[in-house]
Amino acid sequence: MDCELLTVGTELLLGFTVDSNAAVAGRALAAAGLRLVRRATVGDDEAAIRDAAAAALDRTGTVILTGGLGPTRDDCTREAIAALFGRALVRDPAVLAAIEERFARLGRGPMPEANRRQADVPHGATVLPNARGTAPGLMLEDGRGRLAVLLPGVPGEMQGLLEEEVVPRLLQRRGAAEPAAILSRTLRTTGISESALADRVGDPARILGEHLTLAWLPGPEGTDLRLTAWGLAEVPARAALERAAAALRPLVGTHGYGEGDTDLAAVVLAELERRGAHLAVAESCTGGLLGARLTAVPGSSRVFVGGVVAYDNAVKLGLLGVSADTLAADGAVSEAVAREMATGAARALGAEAAAAVTGIAGPDGGTAEKPVGTVWIAALADGNVRTFHYTFPGEREVVRRRAAQAALDALRRTMRGGD
Amino acid sequence: MDCELLTVGTELLLGFTVDSNAAVAGRALAAAGLRLVRRATVGDDEAAIRDAAAAALDRTGTVILTGGLGPTRDDCTREAIAALFGRALVRDPAVLAAIEERFARLGRGPMPEANRRQADVPHGATVLPNARGTAPGLMLEDGRGRLAVLLPGVPGEMQGLLEEEVVPRLLQRRGAAEPAAILSRTLRTTGISESALADRVGDPARILGEHLTLAWLPGPEGTDLRLTAWGLAEVPARAALERAAAALRPLVGTHGYGEGDTDLAAVVLAELERRGAHLAVAESCTGGLLGARLTAVPGSSRVFVGGVVAYDNAVKLGLLGVSADTLAADGAVSEAVAREMATGAARALGAEAAAAVTGIAGPDGGTAEKPVGTVWIAALADGNVRTFHYTFPGEREVVRRRAAQAALDALRRTMRGGD
Repeated sequence: MDCELLTVGTELLLGFTVDSNAAVAGRALAAAGLRLVRRATVGDDEAAIRDAAAAALDRTGTVILTGGLGPTRDDCTREAIAALFGRALVRDPAVLAAIEERFARLGRGPMPEANRRQADVPHGATVLPNARGTAPGLMLEDGRGRLAVLLPGVPGEMQGLLEEEVVPRLLQRRGAAEPAAILSRTLRTTGISESALADRVGDPARILGEHLTLAWLPGPEGTDLRLTAWGLAEVPARAALERAAAALRPLVGTHGYGEGDTDLAAVVLAELERRGAHLAVAESCTGGLLGARLTAVPGSSRVFVGGVVAYDNAVKLGLLGVSADTLAADGAVSEAVAREMATGAARALGAEAAAAVTGIAGPDGGTAEKPVGTVWIAALADGNVRTFHYTFPGEREVVRRRAAQAALDALRRTMRGGD
Repeated sequence: MDCELLTVGTELLLGFTVDSNAAVAGRALAAAGLRLVRRATVGDDEAAIRDAAAAALDRTGTVILTGGLGPTRDDCTREAIAALFGRALVRDPAVLAAIEERFARLGRGPMPEANRRQADVPHGATVLPNARGTAPGLMLEDGRGRLAVLLPGVPGEMQGLLEEEVVPRLLQRRGAAEPAAILSRTLRTTGISESALADRVGDPARILGEHLTLAWLPGPEGTDLRLTAWGLAEVPARAALERAAAALRPLVGTHGYGEGDTDLAAVVLAELERRGAHLAVAESCTGGLLGARLTAVPGSSRVFVGGVVAYDNAVKLGLLGVSADTLAADGAVSEAVAREMATGAARALGAEAAAAVTGIAGPDGGTAEKPVGTVWIAALADGNVRTFHYTFPGEREVVRRRAAQAALDALRRTMRGGD
């Protein structure tokens, strides 16, 4: 069952508000096996709402609208949809009583006249009670079975009504057939570009079969591969996802570090804890990001003892014990300094494992030999030190995020051995 | 000049990704007085892209598309628009050379075959060079003056191309007529709740007049107040915003730390640099976030020397010289330990100024006396140490972000003196 989403609000078009409702609604519909095939946004403009809703109804027969049900003069979704369906707006006494009761209960004083408009309902519409706010949801169907669903734009109210009132009714309309769940499964990778990964995976068709799709989601921390099952009931969907994930894993190889929303910092901390090892970090260009990644994980204090942000070379010399000779000979951004930072952090903080990052995040500081994006990383674990060299693309903050992730990956690779 | 935006990606429809590009593009276009009248999202489906783009061109004559220019098989925006405009896709040698050069420069090894597709350009299109990624932007105009602009979906690349290449060209096409600019101005505050701030501001109507609106934007780092001017030409809009900002500033008082996208870390670093002072930090619960905030500012190395992440108490004792007696008597999360961490960081790292954070970020570790969210902060500047106590609401990461911001604000308040 296909449907379209129409989010209403001039603020959305101007970009003053990020349209989080669109993502929330997309997830709620997909989880119920309802396919959102298109979404659109228009301003608080009755004609634009009417035209966009009519086009959506022509395509799929079902349109869900969010926003424009508030008490102010620019809210006109009710009017637009009543006109499109050729219905009069009628003030509903039960809805009005519920709004007045809500005002009284919250002790907000006398209800403003503007809020009475929120009790206007297109003739024949089903009212969906809104426990979280004043504007109820509305469902309106015409003689040809075409359906408009009107929901408030306040995110919590929209989500509550959609999940509790709308999705069950849409599933009921679809009838008794087993709903096709839209399920997904994500493999996380790092340390390999999206296109190099695509080369390794090759033509995904032989992995996917007819009910799965594969999405590539690149970001500063790596590329996620998301498998999604379409048009299958839940049990066969899970089986198909498991088969495809098993086929992808060897192609992804050692670049894969987990599934779902697994965080690489949590993977590294768990592996260190299994070994009974403690971790210290030494950071130059990341300036604390690596420590922040590790300490974002609840319980990290069982493994992570702390770190030194050695932004100035004097701190590398003083707290980490990097040798002045190495700094002078190789420069602060070098393999030798990264190595001495890692061993120095382990020594100074009393840890068995350590990671160190030194690099040039930009925008200034690059040279022909060491351009912006040059990063050296050293990882100490299981008594071994390994070093890694990168030239990361991107702006300052992207380089820093990539470097922090690469330092975590250096620890993972040093512990797992091999390549 | 009206235009429409079409964001492409099955991920967006499924709600797996929040469509931040839509908001970024809306703001960039509104700031230039270009009116985005509708936006739509379709999946990675050539026919859906073509149909939605055709409808947008019929309505406004200009459509901006984001996404679907990547190297993988599901990326098909180029193909859809070439078909819509009746143009062949031709591999552009200059674009191919730029992509190959980018791969070589970043030392990523041989370019995968998949990336060669990113050099395919609809015949007659203008290529907009993308300094931040492989896929260039494309502009394609037909004989009737209808325009399609194709931009990559990666947020940084999209924004850079839109602001630097597309908006100037759209303004040039529009010619000399004076637009009604939609301009805004933002006052940033921290250390005060949204409702306490609302009480101080009172009824905004007397400040705003008929052409301005005021939006309240609360977040973990503080609440922003955004004034927006509507329906005025640029010069009177700027004057009205200036008047309203001048009226708001005394109401906001010392909680205001800047305007626009001013970052509190940059404010603090500039003030320290003016004094010729250097800064060190000592972090417990923030785990590196405070250092990361400071080093996110380009040029921060002129002021910030580094820090110690003292997650384990042994690091507080060893590297920062916190006294064992104080730790035993007052506990790690206490005013006295925060004070000793700040003075210890200044001493150990050779800085005149310092900030220290110690707290309980949760989810575990809270007690009746010191619940989750308890944070002590100390700031050393101009020879004075001041301490601050908070009980922050929110989850672990929110508490940590609030604590890092509060540590920066502690430095600001210690330097400015007074309350």
